[in-house]
Amino acid sequence: MKKIMNAVADIVRESCEGFALAHADLVRLSTDPLFLCRADSMSGRVGLLSGGGSGHEPLHSGFIGRGMLSAACPGEVFTSPVPDQMLAATKAISGGKGVLYIVKNYTGDVMNFELAAELAAAEGIEVQSVVIGDDVAVEDSTWTAGRRGVGGTVLLEKIAGAAAEAGADLAEVKKVAEGVMENVRSMGLALTGATVPAAGKPNFVLADDEMELGIGIHGEPGRERTAMKSADELVDALLGPIIGDLGLGRGEEVIAFTNGMGGTPLLELYVAHRQVVKHLEGLGVRVARHLVGNFITSLEMQGMSITLMRASAEQLRLWDAPVVTPALRWGA
Amino acid sequence: MKKIMNAVADIVRESCEGFALAHADLVRLSTDPLFLCRADSMSGRVGLLSGGGSGHEPLHSGFIGRGMLSAACPGEVFTSPVPDQMLAATKAISGGKGVLYIVKNYTGDVMNFELAAELAAAEGIEVQSVVIGDDVAVEDSTWTAGRRGVGGTVLLEKIAGAAAEAGADLAEVKKVAEGVMENVRSMGLALTGATVPAAGKPNFVLADDEMELGIGIHGEPGRERTAMKSADELVDALLGPIIGDLGLGRGEEVIAFTNGMGGTPLLELYVAHRQVVKHLEGLGVRVARHLVGNFITSLEMQGMSITLMRASAEQLRLWDAPVVTPALRWGA
Repeated sequence: MKKIMNAVADIVRESCEGFALAHADLVRLSTDPLFLCRADSMSGRVGLLSGGGSGHEPLHSGFIGRGMLSAACPGEVFTSPVPDQMLAATKAISGGKGVLYIVKNYTGDVMNFELAAELAAAEGIEVQSVVIGDDVAVEDSTWTAGRRGVGGTVLLEKIAGAAAEAGADLAEVKKVAEGVMENVRSMGLALTGATVPAAGKPNFVLADDEMELGIGIHGEPGRERTAMKSADELVDALLGPIIGDLGLGRGEEVIAFTNGMGGTPLLELYVAHRQVVKHLEGLGVRVARHLVGNFITSLEMQGMSITLMRASAEQLRLWDAPVVTPALRWGA
Repeated sequence: MKKIMNAVADIVRESCEGFALAHADLVRLSTDPLFLCRADSMSGRVGLLSGGGSGHEPLHSGFIGRGMLSAACPGEVFTSPVPDQMLAATKAISGGKGVLYIVKNYTGDVMNFELAAELAAAEGIEVQSVVIGDDVAVEDSTWTAGRRGVGGTVLLEKIAGAAAEAGADLAEVKKVAEGVMENVRSMGLALTGATVPAAGKPNFVLADDEMELGIGIHGEPGRERTAMKSADELVDALLGPIIGDLGLGRGEEVIAFTNGMGGTPLLELYVAHRQVVKHLEGLGVRVARHLVGNFITSLEMQGMSITLMRASAEQLRLWDAPVVTPALRWGA
């Protein structure tokens, strides 16, 4: 294992410290318990809190800022954060209008966010939660009952964050988040595994001409391991289940998000995105907005995922609203 | 070799097509000859053109837009673009105030941009050039006489771009670019090699506990291959030669840029950046601005580079000026 790190036990904290130094204009760091939150006040606005295991950066910390998350709780690599972190972050961002938890559907995350919500309620902070499971690859998975939460989370955080920034109340922000979840689906593939620092060896190994279709962001098994295919064939293999599950049809509009797993260069991601657009155009589906890059990753894994969201005019308006975070910025 | 691509011969063109689809609000694509340029008019402003081999994305295409590059010419992977591309791009962005070529110091790039400048002059377009060589690792290299052009290029394109956007004339923009070059130095390291698609195998192989200090962005040899070290030791090993060469001293201000080579996760880059800041603070040097991420890459290479620029108040003002490109956005 070769990684740019000091002691394994320090990698998450030290990375958060470096992140907070680099983005002091946008975020504040608490080290005990560990969380990151917006540098500006949340007074009078609904707070948005997410979190999960580290190793998926820029998700979630990179999305803290105006028009997106209010705070994020990083767990150890691929390990849920704990309720103490979530409670402290909830208090830090509570601006009097309640807090929405955005939870990716993994058993540990779901359980710990539920506990934190109870603790917050006991302290008089109203909390609502949404649990996102947008991965169409498999029905249940290694650490998940039901579908895994993956790339759709990025879109959810952006769109719900825009609603919260605009002053929507907690019920409204939750409804916006649910509107994203109903209309977003994803699927990914891996060309290589990734090495969790504490494990010291790759979570799985693929042969030189092998890839895994339907991979999870922690390396959870997908649908099948098959021979490597061309970019266009890979994209088509991911889009088929997504489009089928969404029931997308001619004349509809989507946000198309081609995401890298961390170790795949942009050069390749744009080759894939080209086919995403061509495939959808061939079906009469219009790509109204595009997002391409490494936004929800799996350490240094090579591979990609595709996320499609059927988008209404109102959802596109929220997508276009200004966002000022370390990893996503536009319009302001 | 496992890459998300179709035919090797098509990877650069198809990637540019996907890029142009994803960023149609900002860029326009010409496929014959191949270049990308701003979607808006350059009338009345100095044009900024860069380019070089592909495989370093988001450099350069990702930096096209308001406040940065006017156009970029992508060559084949790790191969210089040709003068025909440069001439066509020059014409496309010529707004009557001349064009500045920003050239990384590699023999092929330098020669082809020189030829293009002659062709442009013959067509009545005034062209000036700057050749950047900011890599302190080695004096001459595989494809370079003198120092290689690396991470400093990103800072140069941003700062010169701000001057051009503000309406500076060609001589002034060139002077701003030269002011960056005098004050910026970089050095990188690799944990793995990278595979050029046309070669089909890694450009070099490092052992499980080995890294190469002073690597070039095409895998050119560095100073030495040594045993893997801690993140803090790696950062210190890069900073020493950079700081020495710049002659940085107590009380000075810098822009600190921690760059990933493509395959290294953000989790690790921020661990490194933490030590960059601590090391500089220990010397009494203030980090006035931060940039962390994969901005000048070497395909899927794991590793990083560090770039420091001694920055005046005027240079910081140009750094802070609005920039709206696919890969770098702020302030507007």
